[in-house]
Amino acid sequence: MVPDIQQQLADYSATLNNQLAPLLSASKINVPEPLHTAVLYSLQAPGKRLRPYLVERSYALAGGRHYSPHSIAWAVECAHVFTLIHDDLPCMDDAQLRRGQPANHRVFGEAMAVLAGDALLALAFELLARQEWSRNREMTAELAGAIGWSGVIGGQVADLQGERQAPALDLVNYIHQQKTARLIVCALRLGALAADAPVQVFNKLEEYGWALGMAFQITDDLLDETGAPGALGKDTRRDAARAKQTYPAVMGREASIHQGQELIQQATLALADFGPEAEDLRSLAQYIMNRTN
Amino acid sequence: MVPDIQQQLADYSATLNNQLAPLLSASKINVPEPLHTAVLYSLQAPGKRLRPYLVERSYALAGGRHYSPHSIAWAVECAHVFTLIHDDLPCMDDAQLRRGQPANHRVFGEAMAVLAGDALLALAFELLARQEWSRNREMTAELAGAIGWSGVIGGQVADLQGERQAPALDLVNYIHQQKTARLIVCALRLGALAADAPVQVFNKLEEYGWALGMAFQITDDLLDETGAPGALGKDTRRDAARAKQTYPAVMGREASIHQGQELIQQATLALADFGPEAEDLRSLAQYIMNRTN
Repeated sequence: MVPDIQQQLADYSATLNNQLAPLLSASKINVPEPLHTAVLYSLQAPGKRLRPYLVERSYALAGGRHYSPHSIAWAVECAHVFTLIHDDLPCMDDAQLRRGQPANHRVFGEAMAVLAGDALLALAFELLARQEWSRNREMTAELAGAIGWSGVIGGQVADLQGERQAPALDLVNYIHQQKTARLIVCALRLGALAADAPVQVFNKLEEYGWALGMAFQITDDLLDETGAPGALGKDTRRDAARAKQTYPAVMGREASIHQGQELIQQATLALADFGPEAEDLRSLAQYIMNRTN
Repeated sequence: MVPDIQQQLADYSATLNNQLAPLLSASKINVPEPLHTAVLYSLQAPGKRLRPYLVERSYALAGGRHYSPHSIAWAVECAHVFTLIHDDLPCMDDAQLRRGQPANHRVFGEAMAVLAGDALLALAFELLARQEWSRNREMTAELAGAIGWSGVIGGQVADLQGERQAPALDLVNYIHQQKTARLIVCALRLGALAADAPVQVFNKLEEYGWALGMAFQITDDLLDETGAPGALGKDTRRDAARAKQTYPAVMGREASIHQGQELIQQATLALADFGPEAEDLRSLAQYIMNRTN
């Protein structure tokens, strides 16, 4: 039986959300009230929690049994929300809507949004170090590399610069790999590191992650063209307005859909060595391509 | 003989600066050129390198012998430069000059300055994880806590809010502790963690750090009133113009100087159990109070 992945994600989100308050209580000593409010505003907004889910599933698939990796899952989500808040800033994409609510800077102002994002990035590393794993050092290096100047932040720079360049496949590939796929791969790698997985498992999960991440972003590009802000919870038709580098802009709609489907096949193929225990990650790949939000 | 601390700091800076390029070569793969330029612009600007020096001296004083802790020293400097770039943003202090050169956002624009700061914060954690120490996990937690919402970033929020409040000692203490002293203490703690110091050494270095850090910021407040931008390398007379919470604003100039001198005595006293090997940290405390830049 194919697991109902949407239901699974929803159930997982609910569990994860309940873990936030106890996780933060050790950290939020002496935090100025407005900063605390601004951080929680974005952290508690209804997200899909895709990256935390990948941490959790990767950990289980790689044989992790001892602890729940929810501090790692939240670390990745904090890093992700940091990127959303900063990407939405007036000096970047100047977005109005995010996860179904006004963007952080619209509510708290630009200075506070910058600082709330900063605080979330620091919090990500704090949470990553919360618990003792055999490979903590590699985990810190992994997240820092994924987020840093050769990762998501580098991708954001290329994204902004790409607004002034003609659509080009090399460029859109770089942007999507760094801005989107890299942190999705990171989530899978962190789960595998926590489980102290052997290198073969690592490689398979990573292969799955790159394909899944690229497919995810292609769907995002397609949804930006056709989706409704109400369903997506964020501004739509922004890519064309800002002349963003996207798959549809580079190769058209049909070829983009085809490319996404091929990536989903690649993702599924990467899991061929696993048994039924990987069925949820296979279903997730299908869902990613067919999603409407 | 009292060591010439200014010469020592200058010599140390030169050595440290030479270590940057090899340290970054492992990290800067695929970094978009303008981001790389913006990050290096601020990282290579002539700073005192006080925090890296404290890492190094703390490590040696705590008995560290095996490796040079220069990746940790640079990690703290990266974190510090991150805070400088974001503090200088138009939406924050809107500063024009920093370390003797135009502020990052003045040269590269606001978006790039936000992202250069972000990249530096990620780089700090990457460098911290570069080498294997026995207490890597605690080191990540230490830096994340010092920078985060209950540390420097929390202090910056209080600093911005303080512009709209009457001068108050409690508030200025909180701001100076979080914005300035906390990262100075962190530098000392990281050195001690790398050396796997016993708890007594830890406590003494921490005591020294709080006193030194507060004295450092009081001198900063005083220099802002009287110093020349040419000597200080940053905007001056900004605190009064923006109605910042400062020691002179709260208690006047004379009492501030007196408070600074008391803190230097406290810092020196904290090192009483150490022998001549702590002489440079004692000289540093004297220098901090009498500095003109």
